[in-house]
Amino acid sequence: MKTVVVRNIPRADADVVKRLGALGASTVHEAYGRSGLMRPYLRPAWAGGEAAGTAVTVLAQPGDNWMIHVAVEQCRPGDILVVGCTSDNTDGMFGDLLATSLKARGVMGLVIDAGCRDVKSLREMGFPVWSKAISAKGTVKAALGAVNVPVVCAGVNVVPGDAVIADDDGVVVVGRKDAAEVAAKGEKRRADEEGKRGQLAAGVLGLDMYNMRAALAKAGLVYVDKPDSD
Amino acid sequence: MKTVVVRNIPRADADVVKRLGALGASTVHEAYGRSGLMRPYLRPAWAGGEAAGTAVTVLAQPGDNWMIHVAVEQCRPGDILVVGCTSDNTDGMFGDLLATSLKARGVMGLVIDAGCRDVKSLREMGFPVWSKAISAKGTVKAALGAVNVPVVCAGVNVVPGDAVIADDDGVVVVGRKDAAEVAAKGEKRRADEEGKRGQLAAGVLGLDMYNMRAALAKAGLVYVDKPDSD
Amino acid sequence: MKTVVVRNIPRADADVVKRLGALGASTVHEAYGRSGLMRPYLRPAWAGGEAAGTAVTVLAQPGDNWMIHVAVEQCRPGDILVVGCTSDNTDGMFGDLLATSLKARGVMGLVIDAGCRDVKSLREMGFPVWSKAISAKGTVKAALGAVNVPVVCAGVNVVPGDAVIADDDGVVVVGRKDAAEVAAKGEKRRADEEGKRGQLAAGVLGLDMYNMRAALAKAGLVYVDKPDSD
Amino acid sequence: MKTVVVRNIPRADADVVKRLGALGASTVHEAYGRSGLMRPYLRPAWAGGEAAGTAVTVLAQPGDNWMIHVAVEQCRPGDILVVGCTSDNTDGMFGDLLATSLKARGVMGLVIDAGCRDVKSLREMGFPVWSKAISAKGTVKAALGAVNVPVVCAGVNVVPGDAVIADDDGVVVVGRKDAAEVAAKGEKRRADEEGKRGQLAAGVLGLDMYNMRAALAKAGLVYVDKPDSD
Amino acid sequence: MKTVVVRNIPRADADVVKRLGALGASTVHEAYGRSGLMRPYLRPAWAGGEAAGTAVTVLAQPGDNWMIHVAVEQCRPGDILVVGCTSDNTDGMFGDLLATSLKARGVMGLVIDAGCRDVKSLREMGFPVWSKAISAKGTVKAALGAVNVPVVCAGVNVVPGDAVIADDDGVVVVGRKDAAEVAAKGEKRRADEEGKRGQLAAGVLGLDMYNMRAALAKAGLVYVDKPDSD
Amino acid sequence: MKTVVVRNIPRADADVVKRLGALGASTVHEAYGRSGLMRPYLRPAWAGGEAAGTAVTVLAQPGDNWMIHVAVEQCRPGDILVVGCTSDNTDGMFGDLLATSLKARGVMGLVIDAGCRDVKSLREMGFPVWSKAISAKGTVKAALGAVNVPVVCAGVNVVPGDAVIADDDGVVVVGRKDAAEVAAKGEKRRADEEGKRGQLAAGVLGLDMYNMRAALAKAGLVYVDKPDSD
Repeated sequence: MKTVVVRNIPRADADVVKRLGALGASTVHEAYGRSGLMRPYLRPAWAGGEAAGTAVTVLAQPGDNWMIHVAVEQCRPGDILVVGCTSDNTDGMFGDLLATSLKARGVMGLVIDAGCRDVKSLREMGFPVWSKAISAKGTVKAALGAVNVPVVCAGVNVVPGDAVIADDDGVVVVGRKDAAEVAAKGEKRRADEEGKRGQLAAGVLGLDMYNMRAALAKAGLVYVDKPDSD
Repeated sequence: MKTVVVRNIPRADADVVKRLGALGASTVHEAYGRSGLMRPYLRPAWAGGEAAGTAVTVLAQPGDNWMIHVAVEQCRPGDILVVGCTSDNTDGMFGDLLATSLKARGVMGLVIDAGCRDVKSLREMGFPVWSKAISAKGTVKAALGAVNVPVVCAGVNVVPGDAVIADDDGVVVVGRKDAAEVAAKGEKRRADEEGKRGQLAAGVLGLDMYNMRAALAKAGLVYVDKPDSD
Repeated sequence: MKTVVVRNIPRADADVVKRLGALGASTVHEAYGRSGLMRPYLRPAWAGGEAAGTAVTVLAQPGDNWMIHVAVEQCRPGDILVVGCTSDNTDGMFGDLLATSLKARGVMGLVIDAGCRDVKSLREMGFPVWSKAISAKGTVKAALGAVNVPVVCAGVNVVPGDAVIADDDGVVVVGRKDAAEVAAKGEKRRADEEGKRGQLAAGVLGLDMYNMRAALAKAGLVYVDKPDSD
Repeated sequence: MKTVVVRNIPRADADVVKRLGALGASTVHEAYGRSGLMRPYLRPAWAGGEAAGTAVTVLAQPGDNWMIHVAVEQCRPGDILVVGCTSDNTDGMFGDLLATSLKARGVMGLVIDAGCRDVKSLREMGFPVWSKAISAKGTVKAALGAVNVPVVCAGVNVVPGDAVIADDDGVVVVGRKDAAEVAAKGEKRRADEEGKRGQLAAGVLGLDMYNMRAALAKAGLVYVDKPDSD
Repeated sequence: MKTVVVRNIPRADADVVKRLGALGASTVHEAYGRSGLMRPYLRPAWAGGEAAGTAVTVLAQPGDNWMIHVAVEQCRPGDILVVGCTSDNTDGMFGDLLATSLKARGVMGLVIDAGCRDVKSLREMGFPVWSKAISAKGTVKAALGAVNVPVVCAGVNVVPGDAVIADDDGVVVVGRKDAAEVAAKGEKRRADEEGKRGQLAAGVLGLDMYNMRAALAKAGLVYVDKPDSD
Repeated sequence: MKTVVVRNIPRADADVVKRLGALGASTVHEAYGRSGLMRPYLRPAWAGGEAAGTAVTVLAQPGDNWMIHVAVEQCRPGDILVVGCTSDNTDGMFGDLLATSLKARGVMGLVIDAGCRDVKSLREMGFPVWSKAISAKGTVKAALGAVNVPVVCAGVNVVPGDAVIADDDGVVVVGRKDAAEVAAKGEKRRADEEGKRGQLAAGVLGLDMYNMRAALAKAGLVYVDKPDSD
């Protein structure tokens, strides 16, 4: 591991990130060919939070939040801080003081593969956090990690500057250069879904709307009218 | 596994199911001799949702929601869709489009031993879901399973047509033929509990109300007045 | 295991416990030298609950809540019931009847290294619970345990009479004789944090406020301006 | 739950069970249409154990092995004892005394959705056990369950008399009436695999042996010769 | 947390500890009133290892093994090092160099609520370890903990000098002053079990040997001769 | 996700990989600045297996091993197949037929963030596998993934051609261009450790050998001679 801070990273286009945010995590994930999704053990610290931004990444050591303090300086308005950890850890690396500092810099939220605390304050501040645990456990500031290097967070390799979209459904990461194409595909998908939603609400079956019956029959699906026994 | 869809299953009586729903999962579970309860890793996708209905069952493959689309057609008003999976899986097999379709058919809710997504929409629609995970992960439509065969979901063998009662305390399944007896027992239990609640609120001890003191003494419980050390 | 109930335990001072409660779990944990924190798998049964009190402890057997009934009698106003279990168990050992009884005795809340149920009622009663699971699973009353002996709960050895502080961030236990000193330290910490919060909100970096730059440089942190590749 | 012991259950044919045992868990699972497999958290208590037999089932309460003692009497030579539990539990419900008793009755092994102990003795006795945990935790004999009713064990609904095949790959359950057909299919599959093994060992690719290339191309798989960047 | 090293702790009697070791973890746990058992997620790093000794305790920080180095000096022949951690951690805090050092001092083994590494060497050295994980993850030496203070390890509060008995069935801790009584009880239990083993091997049923039939009937157990359906 | 197969990837130097393999996973991880280590939930399917090779990567879908079949063709002597999965899955994607095919091509082993089966055969073949689970669960061949693209496996981003070192301590991945430097550092570390091992075996304390006493005192560590109470 190189103990380095990379400054002035290129970032995904802010307008594109906003469009991705308007689509939400599930639609973006689908539009991205069903990729980029972090593992579902990451959950919002408070329900209803939503965020879209560009990744500033941190590689932290277990029980140590020193690098998060270092990373704050590298954040710009519209960023999301993404913290990976060198081993599994649930300590409360992030709380309301760090959130205050990030908010002052225009940061949109935090994604952390470890724990957070001060949940009540975070909710009151409206600062959204996705974490693996909620824990009051305090951390030390003793060991170096890195800032703005590629970091694996909850199963996804996040490159600094990638677009990050997070809501109640989870956290999705889109490569910086893929963001515009994904936004366009997602907007098309959303439009398509509106039409489908209307049909389904009117009672049309997905079996018919998606033309599944022939494929099911070919695969060998059989319909019978009585259960085996009663 | 037989890749089959069973139509026209017999269902627990709708009025009995409503009575069970009014009792709630914990009381029904007790009245059923403390059985029928799914493992507690199933949690409501949004707090406060409640549902009672008759089971239409699905056996799905990991990462594949094809059979859920097939099952929709078999649902009638008052049903609950219950989805088991052939191996552990957290993918978002169910979202707001499927919920729209189920709602259009009068289905009361979904119980799934896998993941769901579009949580915000599900809450806004008032469509209750109990799942093992919330995940944006998209699924394929490639492998057959079965509809309306007995399915193990979160540790309970669910027979199509069984009564399913779900709320914040969990999900309980009652055999179709047992439902009326369980409803009667549960209503008696609930009435008994009202009396007990009043006594306990007035300061009567459970030790006295339940006559536990003699049994505790016989089992060897000893009272002392000082801690071992101070 | 001695199957014993200890009566008339000494308790942490009630006023000190209130001061600790006003500080919250995270601040108390820090002021206590980052100790006393239960494992974060304990979660509030309903969001927003807060409690501070003195521990009445229970050692229960898996699937058996007999000792909780015994413990109710030993509770006084201002206590918190703390339940450990001799092995991992998620059964719903505690519900609204027991909560009614505890509330009638002035108990502030429950911390249980097992499951609870009747979550909706607990929330409506305003009786806060921290548990490992929510489960409707009923329990028997068959095997003895102990009341008011030291009990390990979620990774912390709780001595009867200890101060217990619980909120959305978790559960912290402070030794009876340490409570006053911890309260004083916590109040000082809270005051310090107010000043820091103001600075951070104004845009001062933690790097500067905490004087971290020299230590980081000494540890070998390097700043570079370009990512490895783009 | 009915607290009942069912005697004289019908059992899968002993010769067929032996043939299934000779095939092993993975082949039987495949031959059974990829069904009947218990969740992989069940592991052999000692490596290398293998067993095939007919299920005598037990439904036990957490922390309580009373029903296992009851079940011993119902076992006959060639049986396997299969223990489900009404909630998650890791206690050591089974040890060398019970194993001695089962062995004396000609029982082939134990499958338990809870814990076992005396592992060293079990290995020395050559009595194979598949369990969820190894734990010295002792259990009480206080609460009734049932013997020889259908029981969910590690995700599979086991009907008394079903064939159970267990080895290092896991535990598979085959319905009593399906056993002969599955044995025949499994033997055919095994024979087919021998031919395939020879081809693969000689360097033939599965891509060619299984004729996958066309389907892959149709699905859209693309081959390129250079990585994106180097 | 007091960052302190306590020297010259009193220890359980060495001869008594040997007698406990000869009984094994399961028998000692039973003889101790079914208490003192660590959670079963602690597993031997290599199968077949056995150890009995007196506890030298360590409280470590996640990802930091500094205090283990400090503790070595406090170890005497016949000790077992017991390491708790202030939060969940799986890092490889212990490997063959530390094992070499402990072995040179006559230490019998290690129990650690975190990870270990160099498993192959540990097995070759015959140095037994019980841990929560095997992980090559390296650790820092940056934050203080404590040595020879009471420490919660895998759910048990270990007091320095307690007797620790570990084998394939798990790890049991016996209070220093309770050790002699537990050894005597355990030896009696073992003798009793020999007689029982003989009877069971000869085909006597536990139902009869333990006189369970009357109690089962009184509890309501019913025998029937036919399954519900076939 | 691009559904692509990349051919002719550059690989880490074979001789360097052998040197890394001779050092073992723990030493390589340390020499690599404590990075590159996969999460410890990956375990050897059979104890004692060791492998070192260059990564051919697979991105598979849950419950689907089609891409593994595709990847075999891309393997060369000295490679290790590394399989990531788009969501958590424990199915037995790999068994003895695929192992036969890989062995015929000179592949050194398999690392899979999912399940494997045919464990007995794998051990007899001497083909080492590191997996997240052992499961007989069969998989389909229906959905595309990718071969030889960067893949996150058990928390590490693996680039095709990277060096992979695996043994009982876990799996470490070293970037292709870093391999030679890491090998040199690791060999130096190993030599240093030999000297340390000798000193420690002779009774020298790590406290002295590593000169820790001054730093400990400065950090505030205190020695006392009596426990708090006895």
